[in-house]
Amino acid sequence: MTNLDIFNPISEELAMVEEQLFQSIDTELEILDKAATHLIKAGGKRLRPAFVLLTAKLFSDSIQHAIPLAVALELVHMASLVHDDVIDNSELRRGQPTVKSKWGNRVSLYTGNYVLAKSLCQVAGYQRSDILEVLANASMGICEGEIKQMQSCYNIHQGLKDYLRRIERKTALLIAVSCQLGAMISDSTDAEVMALKRYGYYLGMAFQVTDDILDFVASEEILGKPVGSDIRQGVITLPAIYALKYGTHREELGQMLSSPESCCNRAEEIIDLITETDGIDYAYYVSNIFAEKAIKQLEKLPDLSGKDSLLDIAGFISGREY
Amino acid sequence: MTNLDIFNPISEELAMVEEQLFQSIDTELEILDKAATHLIKAGGKRLRPAFVLLTAKLFSDSIQHAIPLAVALELVHMASLVHDDVIDNSELRRGQPTVKSKWGNRVSLYTGNYVLAKSLCQVAGYQRSDILEVLANASMGICEGEIKQMQSCYNIHQGLKDYLRRIERKTALLIAVSCQLGAMISDSTDAEVMALKRYGYYLGMAFQVTDDILDFVASEEILGKPVGSDIRQGVITLPAIYALKYGTHREELGQMLSSPESCCNRAEEIIDLITETDGIDYAYYVSNIFAEKAIKQLEKLPDLSGKDSLLDIAGFISGREY
Repeated sequence: MTNLDIFNPISEELAMVEEQLFQSIDTELEILDKAATHLIKAGGKRLRPAFVLLTAKLFSDSIQHAIPLAVALELVHMASLVHDDVIDNSELRRGQPTVKSKWGNRVSLYTGNYVLAKSLCQVAGYQRSDILEVLANASMGICEGEIKQMQSCYNIHQGLKDYLRRIERKTALLIAVSCQLGAMISDSTDAEVMALKRYGYYLGMAFQVTDDILDFVASEEILGKPVGSDIRQGVITLPAIYALKYGTHREELGQMLSSPESCCNRAEEIIDLITETDGIDYAYYVSNIFAEKAIKQLEKLPDLSGKDSLLDIAGFISGREY
Repeated sequence: MTNLDIFNPISEELAMVEEQLFQSIDTELEILDKAATHLIKAGGKRLRPAFVLLTAKLFSDSIQHAIPLAVALELVHMASLVHDDVIDNSELRRGQPTVKSKWGNRVSLYTGNYVLAKSLCQVAGYQRSDILEVLANASMGICEGEIKQMQSCYNIHQGLKDYLRRIERKTALLIAVSCQLGAMISDSTDAEVMALKRYGYYLGMAFQVTDDILDFVASEEILGKPVGSDIRQGVITLPAIYALKYGTHREELGQMLSSPESCCNRAEEIIDLITETDGIDYAYYVSNIFAEKAIKQLEKLPDLSGKDSLLDIAGFISGREY
């Protein structure tokens, strides 16, 4: 099963989201138009829109009403990506030059702000303050996650809990909100909204743990950015935390991971020290636990048609191999 | 007449805005709490909240309902300031170290995003999509203004029109929106909303032109940042545009202003060349024209009590001397 198969039930609506993403950029300022369009063109999995659409589809066959919300969720996500690239000084994302590398910091920063403000315009149409609040709160959570990530760099004393709290803000929150809002704008009960929010949360956790594994084991071609980007930036993810605690060479690894110089210059050695432990397997194990928890949340829902797609995604993410 | 006199009719409500600004920062993350609180403590004239409150007061004695909106407008403004400081690498603002200089780029960027998202939470309570749209559109306009400003740096061929379009986005828009929204949440007619929006627009233009003059003629103590900051960054404002067109030494000035090196190293010479022309007087003249236009808009309003405060501000801004 591929990414595309999972999104089959909503392929038409995803195409509309794609079109409306481009239409949402509506400025006379050529450079802003180009930068924002580049950001959208650079693509991505459109996971957040997909979750909005799939959860809305649980409650009605027609999900036209969910499209502006799906666009809004992707715009919030894009704003965080373009801002990340400013701070991390990244040249490549998904194999494309970043907005930062093409147009510099000022354009990137304000493109992010523009796209963030645009996402809120998208939800204004729903005339629902509860939706706006959920989205704005998620944006604030993302900010907290980014700062937490910075604080944890090169910190070899962090544990599983620190890591989980960080990825919760960084990734799980926005996927949880995508599922929650998809249900909220549809004919669902409060209990269904809550179960879907939790489903999105656990799935987002599984997704980020898997993403962090890929930074060790995938190729640059698949990642669209250099392998070991996390290590090079001092971002200590689950396989590294495992290796720091249980690896044979944990002292040597600790010395290297706590120094920005060696993280940057000796990244390959560090990656070898981590991958020779059971850290990668452990991380897959943790990711699977989260995917299982996501599936459990779905069991709380009545027998809605469309539930299978959400089950498939949990299975796909937990077991995915590139 | 001082700033404080003008704000007398709303001093109680401004104190509440101040309190709620601090309360709006509600995060467990210590560094984000400190950075955002520092940003609020650094103060400022609270012009945007004042305009929300003064316009709301035209239509009712009690303006408690306008306080969350006033807080939101100041938060949008603060987000743009903290992001400016990232891009401009500023060490000081209003005589205080910037968030950027104390906590670095990442914290500054995400503090700005946090504060921006918080401002939208503030307006969610009104359950009015029209208000959200106006605010989000203004945020987008500010982004365009910032990019336009970057594009115009060191460009000695810009004219009055380019300058005016730039400061429109940079400043006038958010003051216009403050007045517009203050009326929109009160018992006002569409014509009154429009007149107040235009009043805010013209006043914002007058305000920015005056602010640009101060960068040449005020002291560092009053500005809270080094004199000639604009020139040093290649920002060509109205007195410079005048001097480039009519000054005796316009060729020499043009050469210096088009070079980042001489803008930075020969700022004092440049300032002397500009201030010896009639550029400053001309800018005061333009500022006065805008203040007069602002007053004209007020004449369109019925004889509402509280109108005098708005008239006073236009008079104060056009004639103010530090």
